[in-house]
Amino acid sequence: MIDDTDREQGTEFLPRFDANGLLTAVVIDRSSKDVLMVAFMDREALDATLETGEAHFHSRSRGRLWKKGETSGNILRVAEIGVDCDQDALVLKVEPGGPVCHTGARSCFYRRLDDGRLTFVDS
Amino acid sequence: MIDDTDREQGTEFLPRFDANGLLTAVVIDRSSKDVLMVAFMDREALDATLETGEAHFHSRSRGRLWKKGETSGNILRVAEIGVDCDQDALVLKVEPGGPVCHTGARSCFYRRLDDGRLTFVDS
Repeated sequence: MIDDTDREQGTEFLPRFDANGLLTAVVIDRSSKDVLMVAFMDREALDATLETGEAHFHSRSRGRLWKKGETSGNILRVAEIGVDCDQDALVLKVEPGGPVCHTGARSCFYRRLDDGRLTFVDS
Repeated sequence: MIDDTDREQGTEFLPRFDANGLLTAVVIDRSSKDVLMVAFMDREALDATLETGEAHFHSRSRGRLWKKGETSGNILRVAEIGVDCDQDALVLKVEPGGPVCHTGARSCFYRRLDDGRLTFVDS
């Protein structure tokens, strides 16, 4: 049994996967610090990321391992991984090889909410 | 039925809650752009956030609405909300009123992963 205090205050990496077996992964640009995308990792995706240094996720819609850039070629080199207090979320600091969003945008966050409507922002 | 294209390219806010009724919310410091925490919002938490301008989440462990800072007093004023391509994740740009993490740290991401171990970083 893993103690909460160990998880929060220790130096051991004890990822806490949720009921669906997933961690939340926030991908940010190492240089600009912009949030580029949010995705999920199961144990397989985490291990593949740590082994290769390239971001892998678990696609909830396709139910399988998904190497970011496997189709587009825009892989994400992971420079650093931040871990949160209860170890159920990661921040991946990456050097993007191109647009991160499947729409072709630099970041998936290309809109902001203004008075209930979305406004396109520079991304 | 909401069309994927409308959701990705439109100006209508059409949040896509997951199978558990949740969106992912990434909280960043408006000034430093540091990622402070990651949490989840159901419809109730989203509405409360939009109505008050203060961050509310859905606590998965407690199964209820959770106003950030309700106990600590460190509420999060939301300055801007970014929305991602498929509208299942938000970035909240906030002005923190104090330490964001329940451990007392400025950010929940006070450790990074180095060769399989965690290292404490300035937070």
